[in-house]
Amino acid sequence: MKLVECVPNFSEGRRKEVIDAILDEIKSVEGVKLLDMEMDPDHNRSVITFVGGPEAVKEAAFRAAEKAAELIDMDQHRGEHPRMGATDVIPFVPISDVKMEECVEIAKEVGERIGNDLGIPVYLYEAAATRADRANLADVRRGEYEGLKEEIGKNPDKKPDFGPEKMGKAGATAVGARMPLVAFNVYLGTDDIKIAKAIAKAVRHSSGGLRFVKAMGFEIKERGLVQVSMNLTNYKKTPIHRVFEMIKSEASRFGVNVVEGEIVGLVPEDALLDAAKFYLRLNNFKKMQVLEKKMREG
Amino acid sequence: MKLVECVPNFSEGRRKEVIDAILDEIKSVEGVKLLDMEMDPDHNRSVITFVGGPEAVKEAAFRAAEKAAELIDMDQHRGEHPRMGATDVIPFVPISDVKMEECVEIAKEVGERIGNDLGIPVYLYEAAATRADRANLADVRRGEYEGLKEEIGKNPDKKPDFGPEKMGKAGATAVGARMPLVAFNVYLGTDDIKIAKAIAKAVRHSSGGLRFVKAMGFEIKERGLVQVSMNLTNYKKTPIHRVFEMIKSEASRFGVNVVEGEIVGLVPEDALLDAAKFYLRLNNFKKMQVLEKKMREG
Repeated sequence: MKLVECVPNFSEGRRKEVIDAILDEIKSVEGVKLLDMEMDPDHNRSVITFVGGPEAVKEAAFRAAEKAAELIDMDQHRGEHPRMGATDVIPFVPISDVKMEECVEIAKEVGERIGNDLGIPVYLYEAAATRADRANLADVRRGEYEGLKEEIGKNPDKKPDFGPEKMGKAGATAVGARMPLVAFNVYLGTDDIKIAKAIAKAVRHSSGGLRFVKAMGFEIKERGLVQVSMNLTNYKKTPIHRVFEMIKSEASRFGVNVVEGEIVGLVPEDALLDAAKFYLRLNNFKKMQVLEKKMREG
Repeated sequence: MKLVECVPNFSEGRRKEVIDAILDEIKSVEGVKLLDMEMDPDHNRSVITFVGGPEAVKEAAFRAAEKAAELIDMDQHRGEHPRMGATDVIPFVPISDVKMEECVEIAKEVGERIGNDLGIPVYLYEAAATRADRANLADVRRGEYEGLKEEIGKNPDKKPDFGPEKMGKAGATAVGARMPLVAFNVYLGTDDIKIAKAIAKAVRHSSGGLRFVKAMGFEIKERGLVQVSMNLTNYKKTPIHRVFEMIKSEASRFGVNVVEGEIVGLVPEDALLDAAKFYLRLNNFKKMQVLEKKMREG
């Protein structure tokens, strides 16, 4: 079954009625399932997570952006988190039986529709980026709403992929495609924060470790332990088990045990099946051998 | 989502039109999904696998037994495999969100209906057995159709749980509840069959090993390897990872490596998620954190 996740971020984290109106638009599309919603009043920002087939998810993302443009005025918006639009960012995420290329196509279609029908400048980012300097969302959003309003139409680097070269009160929207994030923490049998920091440094991409790992070391005082806290940004290319085994190996050098692994929030089924396949050495296993999958799709 | 598997065996493996008629009955029940069908002409026996919610599976099992009683005459049946009825055996198997006790109830309800409405003697077996000497299917079926026909009504040990104390041309049916079987093989990096046999003996229940493991050693000539071939009869109580780790440990004593694990046919999702949880030490993981599960059921 083709499943795409969509995790749009909106520049409203205080007026519940606005978020409810956006949620109603999403829920109005048949075949879409709402998974999560988080309103953050300090950041004045909300994150909604939903999944569905490609067509349903496209329609729901567009309707949500349309409603946000109607109800959110960026000239009035204040909040800690960097932002440039009412619908600030819309990532499409492949979950099952969908390739990244298909999510890139979805991002382009939705981006074009938002640009043309709603008159909102749209920048494609991450896997959908059309220029190297737009792969990173932070670069796309630099200057935020106020800065972009000044520059757009003057600075050719700020020409959007779709929509007009001018900003209305809905601001601009980044639309893209990325892999699902897996939030994975590993607890170590020590209270020495230096060890957690050293291991985080060993495994993370930015300091020479695995390509799709972001990691930091933290103290977990209530348990008397330390933790390597990670985001795995591509569990297919840097699978959970490889990260876990590397942490075990690095911890042993300090004579420290790995006490526990922890997945925070949701994880795609495939990420765990891949771990089972690795450890049980199931080199010829096909996912259609999973009874429930065969039942649903066979 | 409540899912029960049903794997009825029918005493017909040659006349395809008979099996097709039985399959049509099963497929006529909404909410039932056919997973597999195997006709064996030598044994003159067929095995059908289907799944669905409790109510749907009950209805489909009854309709199948009714059709088999109509089309199969045990006085005409010849075949290698031990058998006592047109519908020889009906096991109900808990797959997800269903306890064994619920499958026992299902077995009793379906058994009673087959006994009363079709006039077929029904013996409850395995988890549904009402007497210790009926837990094992081989004991229930001893004497087969011809022997039981002689004994029933005379030998009080042969009094059925439901239905009359006499046999018609449809014979008798064993109805029960059991855990799903997981067919799990482990390949060893040696061509020495003695090592596979020694390890099979170490892990299997019958010779002192793990409670829910049946195991044999085989040569796999085309790969120049040997294999420990297993049926895991209760993956919840004897999980795959525990069997696998024991085989690794036993193999190391011979200086032999484990080359590969292999799951034959279907496996419940939970059995693999449990392996991932064990190896990644996810002690606080909840299955609702699996994105697809949350989407379907959350």
